[in-house]
Amino acid sequence: MTDTKPFVALCPETLPQRLGALPGLKERLGANNNSWRVKEVGDGNLNLVFIVEGEQGKAIVKQALPYVRLVGESWPLPLKRSFFEYHALMRQSERDPGTVPQIFHFDAEQAIIVMEFLSPHVILRRALIEGRQLPRIGRDLGRFAARTLFRGSDLAMTARRRKEDLALFSDNVELCDITENLVFSDPYFEAPLNRHTSPQLDGTVAQLRADRDLKVEAQKLKHTFTSKAETLLHGDLHTGSVMVTADETRVIDPEFAFYGPIAFDVGMMIANFWMSYFSQSGHEAQGSRQGMRDYLLAVVVEIWTTFCEEFSQLWRCERNGILYQRSLFEDRGDPLGAEQALDHVLHDIWTDMLGFAGVEIHRRILGLAHNADFETIADLDLRARCETNALKLGRHLVVNRRHIHGLAEINSLAKLLEKETVS
Amino acid sequence: MTDTKPFVALCPETLPQRLGALPGLKERLGANNNSWRVKEVGDGNLNLVFIVEGEQGKAIVKQALPYVRLVGESWPLPLKRSFFEYHALMRQSERDPGTVPQIFHFDAEQAIIVMEFLSPHVILRRALIEGRQLPRIGRDLGRFAARTLFRGSDLAMTARRRKEDLALFSDNVELCDITENLVFSDPYFEAPLNRHTSPQLDGTVAQLRADRDLKVEAQKLKHTFTSKAETLLHGDLHTGSVMVTADETRVIDPEFAFYGPIAFDVGMMIANFWMSYFSQSGHEAQGSRQGMRDYLLAVVVEIWTTFCEEFSQLWRCERNGILYQRSLFEDRGDPLGAEQALDHVLHDIWTDMLGFAGVEIHRRILGLAHNADFETIADLDLRARCETNALKLGRHLVVNRRHIHGLAEINSLAKLLEKETVS
Repeated sequence: MTDTKPFVALCPETLPQRLGALPGLKERLGANNNSWRVKEVGDGNLNLVFIVEGEQGKAIVKQALPYVRLVGESWPLPLKRSFFEYHALMRQSERDPGTVPQIFHFDAEQAIIVMEFLSPHVILRRALIEGRQLPRIGRDLGRFAARTLFRGSDLAMTARRRKEDLALFSDNVELCDITENLVFSDPYFEAPLNRHTSPQLDGTVAQLRADRDLKVEAQKLKHTFTSKAETLLHGDLHTGSVMVTADETRVIDPEFAFYGPIAFDVGMMIANFWMSYFSQSGHEAQGSRQGMRDYLLAVVVEIWTTFCEEFSQLWRCERNGILYQRSLFEDRGDPLGAEQALDHVLHDIWTDMLGFAGVEIHRRILGLAHNADFETIADLDLRARCETNALKLGRHLVVNRRHIHGLAEINSLAKLLEKETVS
Repeated sequence: MTDTKPFVALCPETLPQRLGALPGLKERLGANNNSWRVKEVGDGNLNLVFIVEGEQGKAIVKQALPYVRLVGESWPLPLKRSFFEYHALMRQSERDPGTVPQIFHFDAEQAIIVMEFLSPHVILRRALIEGRQLPRIGRDLGRFAARTLFRGSDLAMTARRRKEDLALFSDNVELCDITENLVFSDPYFEAPLNRHTSPQLDGTVAQLRADRDLKVEAQKLKHTFTSKAETLLHGDLHTGSVMVTADETRVIDPEFAFYGPIAFDVGMMIANFWMSYFSQSGHEAQGSRQGMRDYLLAVVVEIWTTFCEEFSQLWRCERNGILYQRSLFEDRGDPLGAEQALDHVLHDIWTDMLGFAGVEIHRRILGLAHNADFETIADLDLRARCETNALKLGRHLVVNRRHIHGLAEINSLAKLLEKETVS
């Protein structure tokens, strides 16, 4: 059934014929592929995404392109990212069942993943821009992070399996390279692909790029990102990689997956809620977003609290890897030793998480890939005021992360920044 | 020329016939392989080592065995460690030319490396036990560490090359497993393979194994060891892996090579000089070793000072990798930013280095693989007194490493411990 010809990009016209024989699709859509309707809906930066609808149902067909969709053929990007996405989805589905789309078919050569059509799910970022409060999101995302990150590490896996996966995903060089450059370096100097709200932010941007402590700390975070191969990361866990209903949360698009620091996924995720927070005053045309702002800061707390609770629970029940082994603690009547170690590990994740959150905020405002939260604010003066607050918070997180004691402190600072802008 | 039969261990009788046709050997030893004399000299824990002497010269033939030589066939160990040793030697020879033996031939299937016979070199550990002061050792080892560790990292390599090597060496699972267990875990509980000078050390050992802070910190160091994939380590850089003359230093036996923290090689190396220091009072039958003790503490300072100087030099001249890139610092007129980052990086190496030194000391006295420095002290009471001092220093390093400001502090403590024992 697999297409073994050289790579050819799908299009709505050819898709029914090319994929019409796949059992995984026929079962869901109905065997009559002539009746399939196909719509290209990809709004991400990298890939083609099709909704395919047949007589019996729908499915998603995602295909990687040999270049960055956002930029064009001048920026080639290998098709194998589809392979890493598929393998990451398989592992996430095992480590936190039900949180990623079901996979019906994978074709490595054509870089095609056929998967469950999620309905009536919407992209979380879109929902937050519209001012929707999703009740489950904090708990679901905190748990997803804890389960996938704990269970992909030396805390839970055999050393051999982890080292095999480390080797497997270390070939995802080009997508790591994107993060290494676009997240950690480009925002902090005048890199060609950068853009920002100009001229409104020019002064602030110049100030940040002249800020030695910020640059050094951002580079230390990059050092941690490239060398701390703790666990299989999603690698791009922002509010655009989450699909939601009021009752359900699904995480998509893990093509940036590789072995990196536990704190990275958590920090990137939380950063996107803080950005949503600062963007709300740009979306108040239909009424105050104060309730939404309170909700967003509460979600940040819930993600982190849930993450810590679930991670601690797994630490106590599933710590069967080579790290902090029971033979040294519980088995010798010293469960308190294991709790002490847990505190240290969570503390290190906390500190790095804040730093990663800070650089994620910066790169979304100073770098190439911006967020719709801010981009959809048409009034550039207003947008720049929102972005300035976010940049300031980001700088605080990156530089002072070792001296911040809890989220209450940061959320207070966020409120203060917000209040000063309004007044 | 390569033997393609299933693995067969060499022995002095079969070696000339089996390897007689290798050009690399014939050139050095002379073509008449019937006249070759072969002596098995392996005194390490893992492999067979032969000196082969012909009419024109000598060579070393090293062959891995499919089990741990020290333990026997009950502990299987894959032959592929020879492959990793070969590839590590190639990289070290490129990164610090002239510091490892020249390689004449490698046979992956028979796990054989044919290399330069070093003469009149002796094993550094042996020289230190005999009380010999080698004048170059501190400088040579500091430089070897700085060059191989800097040049194998994201500070110097392209991201792709580093990730390829990360993947390659991540298959060295079994040798990593030895370090993970024997260095970081077994010493801290009653693991079956442990042994110690008994009954003299029983009380101290029980105390250390009940020391919660020590156990937690040792496990955090293990966490760092397994996850901080910064650079290609030698992986077993102790005084038994170094061959010396008064004029030359060569590093051998990198079969434990894998991607780990920069600080590991440095810490393990320095630890072995501190152990030598504490062992000296067990070797004073032919006269005082006070001069030797002073020398050893000075070597520790010289290794670390040279390491920092050389690392800083490379940082300024060869920092062409993806970390702390020049485009953020020097290229923007901010060389001070790069110096600030260098300080932070060296500080982190310092802190971890002390911790790794501490666990290395512990495992050599409490674990499976002991050091001849202590083992050759026949008087068990005297040996135990030496070992106790080393154990105390090790505990201090592991638990207090974040609060130690310099080597002067540690060397003072070492002198104090030594004085208290004597008095």
